Amino acid sequence: MSKGFLVSIEGPEGAGKTSVLEAILPILKEKDIDFLTTREPGGVLIGEKIREVILDPNHTQMDSKTELLLYIASRRQHLVEKVLPALAAGKLVIMDRFIDSSVAYQGFGRGLDIDAVNWLNQFATDGLKPDLTLYFDIEVEKGLERIAANSSREVNRLDLEGLEMHRKVRQGYLSLLEKEGNRIEKIDASLPLDQVIEKTKQVLFDRMGLTR
Amino acid sequence: MSKGFLVSIEGPEGAGKTSVLEAILPILKEKDIDFLTTREPGGVLIGEKIREVILDPNHTQMDSKTELLLYIASRRQHLVEKVLPALAAGKLVIMDRFIDSSVAYQGFGRGLDIDAVNWLNQFATDGLKPDLTLYFDIEVEKGLERIAANSSREVNRLDLEGLEMHRKVRQGYLSLLEKEGNRIEKIDASLPLDQVIEKTKQVLFDRMGLTR
Repeated sequence: MSKGFLVSIEGPEGAGKTSVLEAILPILKEKDIDFLTTREPGGVLIGEKIREVILDPNHTQMDSKTELLLYIASRRQHLVEKVLPALAAGKLVIMDRFIDSSVAYQGFGRGLDIDAVNWLNQFATDGLKPDLTLYFDIEVEKGLERIAANSSREVNRLDLEGLEMHRKVRQGYLSLLEKEGNRIEKIDASLPLDQVIEKTKQVLFDRMGLTR
Repeated sequence: MSKGFLVSIEGPEGAGKTSVLEAILPILKEKDIDFLTTREPGGVLIGEKIREVILDPNHTQMDSKTELLLYIASRRQHLVEKVLPALAAGKLVIMDRFIDSSVAYQGFGRGLDIDAVNWLNQFATDGLKPDLTLYFDIEVEKGLERIAANSSREVNRLDLEGLEMHRKVRQGYLSLLEKEGNRIEKIDASLPLDQVIEKTKQVLFDRMGLTR
């Protein structure tokens, strides 16, 4: 159904996803590629309202199944309103986090049943998966050091999780990589930024059939 | 796990569920029965916030899967915070709408896959079903007449649905009744109110093993 190309960017906080993305976008513009970058809830009104409920620091009573259902609801709305129309228009759509984040964070991180998370992802997306997933891998301690150094970002409820949680999340990503190696490309995010950018360009352009 | 007794009240708008409930409660008090009546989101902070998102009249773009996921999220939170503790304390819990409303309204009414709605209900409740469901049955036209006569209630987005939707919802309830006749008791809500109340008392007390 979709004519475009869907890329998801995954990895823990502190892996440098945002910096890499910022370096790649000008190159896409130079090449006259029609693209959209987005991140759930992505300015979609209903999705934004749902996200407010998830992140409200007063909501300490939130059950982990409730949280997962809200993420999935926000995913559905964002997909329908923003991603599907862009793909139908033939665009390259780059999503900062998508289905794998739910598996890694809610499934492996919070211990919710992985099959249930997969079922919910399938329900929300009608089975749509990224054409390519760039997974930025970094050791947990190194990622957390980077977050600590970047004090400009506001701390939200989800940052207040422990080291153990972050370890489980990485395990989740590595497990996904093992199962879906055709879709997911691991990029070593512990390398210097310019090397990470170069590797990302290489993988992305190869998969899209573009010359660098 | 639960020591209490869980009753759900189901049926279309206009079946008179609220009037019957108001007539039954004083009798429960007289009998010194420890009970809780509730309706999702039931004053549970997170559930209330979710419900605001569902009912906001500005949210005309809401996808029906998003809507279902939000109802289920609200259900989960209400169950965890309010229903399960009351059941664990041995109470009679009477819920105004529960799992069957999702099957009837989102499944049959909006045409979402029934198996998916069932899966989501199961996920939210960990498989908990009411010990007894009182289904107040009324012909669609008669129910809508009653709603129209009751002009005191505010009109929300969900009332702006057509007659066809209400017909499908009733079909949904009747289909549930056919499949789960042991759990669900149909009460003819087109009868005069005092007869409906009498029948409700009879069914409820018989099922709870109480004398009338």
